[in-house]
Amino acid sequence: MSACGADNSISEQWRALDINNTVLLTLPQGKVVIELAPQFSPKHVEQFSTLVKKSFYDGAKFYRVIDGFVAQAGPKGGSDKDKSVSVLAIEGQFSINKDWSFTPVQNHDLFAETTGFKDGFALASDNNGNAWLTHCPGTLVMARGNAADSASSHFYFVIGQAPRYLDKIMTIFGRVVYGMEHIQAIKRTSVIEGEYAVDSREYTAITRMKLMADVPLNERIILEVENTESPRFAERLIKRRARESEFFYKKPPPVLDICQVPIRSRLVK
Amino acid sequence: MSACGADNSISEQWRALDINNTVLLTLPQGKVVIELAPQFSPKHVEQFSTLVKKSFYDGAKFYRVIDGFVAQAGPKGGSDKDKSVSVLAIEGQFSINKDWSFTPVQNHDLFAETTGFKDGFALASDNNGNAWLTHCPGTLVMARGNAADSASSHFYFVIGQAPRYLDKIMTIFGRVVYGMEHIQAIKRTSVIEGEYAVDSREYTAITRMKLMADVPLNERIILEVENTESPRFAERLIKRRARESEFFYKKPPPVLDICQVPIRSRLVK
Repeated sequence: MSACGADNSISEQWRALDINNTVLLTLPQGKVVIELAPQFSPKHVEQFSTLVKKSFYDGAKFYRVIDGFVAQAGPKGGSDKDKSVSVLAIEGQFSINKDWSFTPVQNHDLFAETTGFKDGFALASDNNGNAWLTHCPGTLVMARGNAADSASSHFYFVIGQAPRYLDKIMTIFGRVVYGMEHIQAIKRTSVIEGEYAVDSREYTAITRMKLMADVPLNERIILEVENTESPRFAERLIKRRARESEFFYKKPPPVLDICQVPIRSRLVK
Repeated sequence: MSACGADNSISEQWRALDINNTVLLTLPQGKVVIELAPQFSPKHVEQFSTLVKKSFYDGAKFYRVIDGFVAQAGPKGGSDKDKSVSVLAIEGQFSINKDWSFTPVQNHDLFAETTGFKDGFALASDNNGNAWLTHCPGTLVMARGNAADSASSHFYFVIGQAPRYLDKIMTIFGRVVYGMEHIQAIKRTSVIEGEYAVDSREYTAITRMKLMADVPLNERIILEVENTESPRFAERLIKRRARESEFFYKKPPPVLDICQVPIRSRLVK
């Protein structure tokens, strides 16, 4: 780190992930890294992390995988393992006061007054002091039954166009920061009318899921992600909105879909 | 077909695909069916169909595959094959008069005055008599250089959150109606900082691409798709917007993202 202002600004562009707050998910097709969001969904992250530490998800299958929608996994429904996990109170939104800050992206999309980023997570807010994480592709969400407070261990990844209608009524608690293509390659379990059902033996199973801190040093995937609070990131948003490249021979509307602004990761090791 | 009104309404819910207007794309990982859109992009469909009939794309590689964005394929850039194809005038939007009709879905999303469906395709319109197909996941689009009228044979599929900022300035000419999961499994060619480049020998190649009419009868995939002009489909939109299921213990805003309304297909054979 240099004392020079310019260098500092460069270093601030990236943020190291906390290995105690990062999960390595090994699938048959490759490795995936997830950043958890305890600052937004503390109880869900706590429960999920505890389960991961106990190797709870190793061998669990993605049993509900709908192309363009979600890839959902968990222990066999109704099994002792399934029933052993406590039910969680929903953490679908949180209160913000006027000191709360984030990097704004867009006002008045279909679903929210304002959208933006905080700590790399896409979120939205209303004018009544509420904010919530949004269901962008790659978000990790706890599944639930009909009751608000019925989630326990089953989770899904969003694998298609953001189902923003689920915002606020589900608990988003992490996001994929590496290896999203392997999530996209999870075997679909839903079929269309006229097709044979998929044999459950073909379902994709989780090989292993570990907190990065518990992964042997030589197997860790160490990442940095864009610091969405940095001036550099704010500049990138401005450029993305303006579409100055010659490719845009006609300029699109100067708007940004919060789920269409990829947050970059880079590999440190 | 029955003369009974109720039965007619059921049969109208589905629409058979025209085998002269449907493409079977065989990838190493599975088969994909594409419906072309000559009613919206006639010259692009004509050129693409002609190329498909000549087996032009067989062996071509997906050389630009960016997770969450696009999977792009075409002949080797600058090769004789590449240069042999005529350049097309863009068909990014079309004029509509007051007799033109479609099934409306939503007013005032971030990118358009109105969105809706026609013939199963997601589209949008403004108040000045223009309409255009929208870049939803699964759409097939001709790639181009910086000039508007520079597309020839290279194409991409949208594989992530709809990049609606490309609407109107690209020519969308088809959409995936079957096997989208195989498009999602195409090998990514872009890497993040710190990763090794992907060897081009690992790129996914097109095994074969044929018009369905030219596929031997016993190898055809015969599909019907939802008739987006049917009363049944209009009802489904109303239900989707209302989210009446008990799962929605708190109702989301009564809005629909045009790219988050899946159009169903069913297998006839």
